[in-house]
Amino acid sequence: MDKKNALKTNLTMLTDFYEITMANGYFTNGLQNTVVYFDMFFRELPDNGGFAIMAGVQQLIEYLENLNFTGDDIGYLRSCKIFNEDFLQYLAHFHFACDVWTVPEGMPIFPGEPIITVRGPVIQAQFVETMILLTVNHQSLIATKANRICRAAAGRPVMEFGSRRAQGPDGAVLGARAAYIGGCCGTACTICGVDYGIPALGTMAHSWVQLFDSELDAFRAYAREYPQSCTLLIDTYNVLKSGLPNAIRTFKEEVLPRGYRPAGIRIDSGDITYLSRKARKILDDAGFPDCKICASNSLDEYIIRDMLVQGACVDSFGVGERMITSSSHPIFGGVYKLSGVEDGEGNIVPKIKISENVTKITTPGFKKILRLYDRETGKAIADVITLHDETIDDSRPYEIFDPDYVWKRKTVKNFRAVEIRRQIFRNGHCIAPQRTIQEIRNDCRRQVDTLWDEVKRFENPHRYYVDLSRKLWDMKNRLISKYSG
Amino acid sequence: MDKKNALKTNLTMLTDFYEITMANGYFTNGLQNTVVYFDMFFRELPDNGGFAIMAGVQQLIEYLENLNFTGDDIGYLRSCKIFNEDFLQYLAHFHFACDVWTVPEGMPIFPGEPIITVRGPVIQAQFVETMILLTVNHQSLIATKANRICRAAAGRPVMEFGSRRAQGPDGAVLGARAAYIGGCCGTACTICGVDYGIPALGTMAHSWVQLFDSELDAFRAYAREYPQSCTLLIDTYNVLKSGLPNAIRTFKEEVLPRGYRPAGIRIDSGDITYLSRKARKILDDAGFPDCKICASNSLDEYIIRDMLVQGACVDSFGVGERMITSSSHPIFGGVYKLSGVEDGEGNIVPKIKISENVTKITTPGFKKILRLYDRETGKAIADVITLHDETIDDSRPYEIFDPDYVWKRKTVKNFRAVEIRRQIFRNGHCIAPQRTIQEIRNDCRRQVDTLWDEVKRFENPHRYYVDLSRKLWDMKNRLISKYSG
Repeated sequence: MDKKNALKTNLTMLTDFYEITMANGYFTNGLQNTVVYFDMFFRELPDNGGFAIMAGVQQLIEYLENLNFTGDDIGYLRSCKIFNEDFLQYLAHFHFACDVWTVPEGMPIFPGEPIITVRGPVIQAQFVETMILLTVNHQSLIATKANRICRAAAGRPVMEFGSRRAQGPDGAVLGARAAYIGGCCGTACTICGVDYGIPALGTMAHSWVQLFDSELDAFRAYAREYPQSCTLLIDTYNVLKSGLPNAIRTFKEEVLPRGYRPAGIRIDSGDITYLSRKARKILDDAGFPDCKICASNSLDEYIIRDMLVQGACVDSFGVGERMITSSSHPIFGGVYKLSGVEDGEGNIVPKIKISENVTKITTPGFKKILRLYDRETGKAIADVITLHDETIDDSRPYEIFDPDYVWKRKTVKNFRAVEIRRQIFRNGHCIAPQRTIQEIRNDCRRQVDTLWDEVKRFENPHRYYVDLSRKLWDMKNRLISKYSG
Repeated sequence: MDKKNALKTNLTMLTDFYEITMANGYFTNGLQNTVVYFDMFFRELPDNGGFAIMAGVQQLIEYLENLNFTGDDIGYLRSCKIFNEDFLQYLAHFHFACDVWTVPEGMPIFPGEPIITVRGPVIQAQFVETMILLTVNHQSLIATKANRICRAAAGRPVMEFGSRRAQGPDGAVLGARAAYIGGCCGTACTICGVDYGIPALGTMAHSWVQLFDSELDAFRAYAREYPQSCTLLIDTYNVLKSGLPNAIRTFKEEVLPRGYRPAGIRIDSGDITYLSRKARKILDDAGFPDCKICASNSLDEYIIRDMLVQGACVDSFGVGERMITSSSHPIFGGVYKLSGVEDGEGNIVPKIKISENVTKITTPGFKKILRLYDRETGKAIADVITLHDETIDDSRPYEIFDPDYVWKRKTVKNFRAVEIRRQIFRNGHCIAPQRTIQEIRNDCRRQVDTLWDEVKRFENPHRYYVDLSRKLWDMKNRLISKYSG
């Protein structure tokens, strides 16, 4: 994969300044080699949905592999006049040496789960906080939104169209990557084709039509150039009075004689539901039942669902600003919290952050996530967060319980328990398997299929069970008693 | 300025695929040298505000200066099997040759104004659409939001804290740049210090406090390291019972003896208005009236305004996710429309896009923007969009009129008419003056000061006058009659 355009090679200094002041402090306090555990998790699902989609891990890997401080970086920090020279020398010879576990890209994820754990020297595990959160928050946000929009489209292809309204070049490029993982069939963003192998497609803007002396001239010129894939934008002047008749005439005069069938029409304004039904009838009557109708113009999952409920005859959707910014919920609130410290004698001392707000209390310890799948239906039943060295014997019934309302219990039978996280770095070296973006996208579709429809609906989705093992629950509650007592 | 980290050098292929299919079509239709005019403008102000702030021009300049297609880019396009070889050769030898005019960064801008005009061969002027919109939409969005938040803070410094929730690395870096232009005093994003000279600052996270055996130990260690700038985060356990008493003890034991005054405390959770008032009193009583109180935690202009109305004792604000994503309105809807075509005989043929929705009808022709300032108060009275060769004689009274309700008229006297756009490219060469980010930020403050308070308020702001010259209004209405008749 050619990365020359789409990603900066060194984002080491894209970090909150306090990561560096703390690192310097750990260093001078002799704590730099203290081994700690940090978890990334999130508390709230975007758009009150039932699940989110993990994404951004590939960019996290590239960031961690390229961590290094240039002479200019060190010079900048020295000019701040608050850092010790020994610390700056440490940075100049920095080698990433942490272990990292993540949920793979494309997997459904849920609030409270340690979707990433970093184990390593505190000076390093702390330092990477900003970029871990940035890249996974961003791409998970867009993959989740895209997945919602694609599910609303109910099997019809959805194209990502949002570059011009993205929040910066990376917002466009990495957002399109995440949207593809979430289920889009392609993007209008050409660089994603070059750098990521994502199908990049597009036809014409209104300006093409405006530049010619007439709409018909514009359509004819386009059809002569692209008879094999002739999709015409028909709303520059008037869809039914002008655009569609001119399109049909062009298909007959310029496409059929060259041995092709018309590819489609696109409607980018007006009452698309009404116009698409009228257009479908007219196209069918003209002998073009195979001519696709594409709709665009500030769409999202709610509008698409309404259009389809009202019988819109749309074969594919182009979705721009509302997907590329996740405009109805533009923040994925992942956080990164200390969960344990090694005492140097082989023990992990669990750490907790107490809060008045109970949802802000963290789950301590070094953990893993087991997803329980029903052996018969293949559906995901629940996730159980356990300590890293626990196992669940899936040959026997297993009782899960709600960690907040412990009297809510359920015995699960005939299930497979699958650890969903993978170690991606060992002692600073990447050990993640290479997956193509197509493989990730396919995995996403397969994994979303394991969720019950109740979890997938947009309004009042069923809350998927994310429970703690008995051992972890006990430990957490011991620590809460200790610190709040 | 060192740009090695923060910006990719070649974003040529970050363009909607249809820009390329159209370019190829213009080429084979012999239209590639037809000279056209495109305008960027926007229709709606974020957050129902009274104005927006122009930003992103510097990144637009860098994009245009670096426009070139690599061998790999050409190879990718060839592999699409729809482009002519002559066209691909044209791209391989592409030289940007357009003229570009923009409103300078930091200026207030209003709906309907041609904030950018590009004049040049259609194949080029069309091609740059995606990145022009992307960069100016993104940074204008964030600069506008930051300016709102800074105005709500009423003179108190506002720090940008949002990297971890930004939409991609550029969202963090260029967003922080735009936030600084809009009025922030600095950022937590270190790379912005290295690459843009924006003040980068930060102190500690909760994990610092958690890692030590006690909060007091953590504070002491920090104060010993940074006695000259000791700001302590006091809400890890309990602000009033634990954090503040430990902070005061640390200031007395570790800061004063080293000859410094305590810098501040930061509160990142809880009822900050209440806690800050309590903390202020306790700090004053402890002999630290100069110790600043910094507040953070999901703030925006509305929360800050409410906090100050209720008497919060906050000296500075850290604002994260809601500013870096402009979460209450995460899209700046700038568009890029064809406004004219040269006929080869020295005439500009104006072009218009008609729409059922009257606000979507474009203003044709090659235009400029004059801002009328009152000579006495210095305040901005109105903007008048004129054709490029018109002048307004500001030694005489001038009658402005509402372009939609033409009976609304006003005669302006004793004013200066200032053309607010600058040409930044001539025949493909950058002629923009270099300005430092500090100069842009200062210009922004000065220009926002020229707006009346009525335009600046958050609720129901006065709609600033953006009028058309008589000549332009006549031309526009002639074209509307022609195309809708």
